[in-house]
Amino acid sequence: MLLGSIEAGGTKFICAVGNEDYRIKDKVQIPTTTPEETLTAVVDYFKQFKLDALGIASFGPIEIRKTSPKYGYITTTPKKGWANTDFLGFIKKSINVPISWTTDVNGSAFGEYTMSTLFNEKIESLVYYTIGTGVGAGAVIDGHLVGSAGHPEMGHVLLKRHPDDLNFKGICPYHHDCLEGLVAGPTFEARTGKKGQDVPLTDKTWDILAYYIAQAAIQVTLILRPNKIVFGGGVTNKVLLEKVRSEFKNILNDYVKVPPLDQYITMPQVANNGSANIGNFALAENLLLK
Amino acid sequence: MLLGSIEAGGTKFICAVGNEDYRIKDKVQIPTTTPEETLTAVVDYFKQFKLDALGIASFGPIEIRKTSPKYGYITTTPKKGWANTDFLGFIKKSINVPISWTTDVNGSAFGEYTMSTLFNEKIESLVYYTIGTGVGAGAVIDGHLVGSAGHPEMGHVLLKRHPDDLNFKGICPYHHDCLEGLVAGPTFEARTGKKGQDVPLTDKTWDILAYYIAQAAIQVTLILRPNKIVFGGGVTNKVLLEKVRSEFKNILNDYVKVPPLDQYITMPQVANNGSANIGNFALAENLLLK
Repeated sequence: MLLGSIEAGGTKFICAVGNEDYRIKDKVQIPTTTPEETLTAVVDYFKQFKLDALGIASFGPIEIRKTSPKYGYITTTPKKGWANTDFLGFIKKSINVPISWTTDVNGSAFGEYTMSTLFNEKIESLVYYTIGTGVGAGAVIDGHLVGSAGHPEMGHVLLKRHPDDLNFKGICPYHHDCLEGLVAGPTFEARTGKKGQDVPLTDKTWDILAYYIAQAAIQVTLILRPNKIVFGGGVTNKVLLEKVRSEFKNILNDYVKVPPLDQYITMPQVANNGSANIGNFALAENLLLK
Repeated sequence: MLLGSIEAGGTKFICAVGNEDYRIKDKVQIPTTTPEETLTAVVDYFKQFKLDALGIASFGPIEIRKTSPKYGYITTTPKKGWANTDFLGFIKKSINVPISWTTDVNGSAFGEYTMSTLFNEKIESLVYYTIGTGVGAGAVIDGHLVGSAGHPEMGHVLLKRHPDDLNFKGICPYHHDCLEGLVAGPTFEARTGKKGQDVPLTDKTWDILAYYIAQAAIQVTLILRPNKIVFGGGVTNKVLLEKVRSEFKNILNDYVKVPPLDQYITMPQVANNGSANIGNFALAENLLLK
């Protein structure tokens, strides 16, 4: 079986083919320029292979409701030239196999879920957050991605403010101090004048971030009761997650039972942001099993 | 077909039997005294009927994970005498039909979901909050209740504080100023010295509550993207929900599309807190259809 994966990001598209064991057989990066140019290069790449199915995980917002006439579109993205692009339609014109279509973070969520179940963890549900330039998340429940009325936008929930961070306005243009506005990568520069990578892990800014990220973990814990919460993205690191676990424990105050926190709140199993690739393979394969 | 329903509350149990159209044929109230006495009266009531299946929606916390040896138990409730009660086991000893087991709010969520689909609304997912002495919620996604690792406890999320409410400590013994600690019925007395029913709807306390309840609605909107959010319970009323819609619109700032707010954020369709009854019938019937 040959499965294809498109991980579509704002700076590059990662295209890969793999087998039913989700082993990558070939992989390329294509820069994100115009939709016409990038998608043509993507199609040309996959034409070399005899795919059985293809999975696409795209930056967004995208339309994922199958009942919508805009299903398969990138909709209102600020990425220049890409708003209102019929991504899926363009691919379908040239690649005539079953194609799955979801968001980048949903792809990663499904990849992490798939990896967990492959290695026999007893997992029915999982939430995946990416914390980078922005904050997004996807959730899998009972093997299905969540989002009846559209994909989740968990990066934009409001939070209780940290007492040492009351004067920071937040950087989200839509909501100011939502989760993304308080913890996305660029908040380091907004708070300290330095890039995140230059702020030592002993700086209290990391404690403030951990307090907010823990609240996000609390929200999905109490709303979804998932088996696992995975944090990826450029801002996430092991020291930060240890702080998140500590804040999470304080806030939850043993109100509900959760797995041991080092297993419950974790880094991705798939290294180098490769989760979406695995997720795409698995989602594509699922189309063939239906 | 004859379906049974037990809606188990801290002050009374409502037992009912109904048909496959969810019409109630008979109904009684049994006071909540000791587990032995109350559950015996419940069993005696149902022995009059030839049930095909039974649904139970109980106050909690309860164990809903089928893999747990305590499945079917009321676990750590503060209700005197009821902690660690094998509710489902007691019923099963005398009533030998398929029995569904879930929380009171899950029952209500499923009832509201069922009512919506019966009347041909295009609904795949729904969240039901009850705001009364406490705050609880249940969620249905693609026809299934959410909660892999236990039932949701959405009443205990943290929230951004209202600028006119910064000095209120909140009444939750576990988290102080979580949603329940800020909006449950007894917060009226804690804030104003008056019971909620005696606080005029023009009082700004209602605006403060609406700001917090709107944040709860924002959280589930961005995390689950449901088709509908229903608010029941003694604190909820039409004027409050109108304020909630207004705050919700302000906070969301059009970030994602939602249905018209008067359809999206609503009072229960089933009057007099009868949603759980319908939900129990439907959950019981589902066991027969499997």
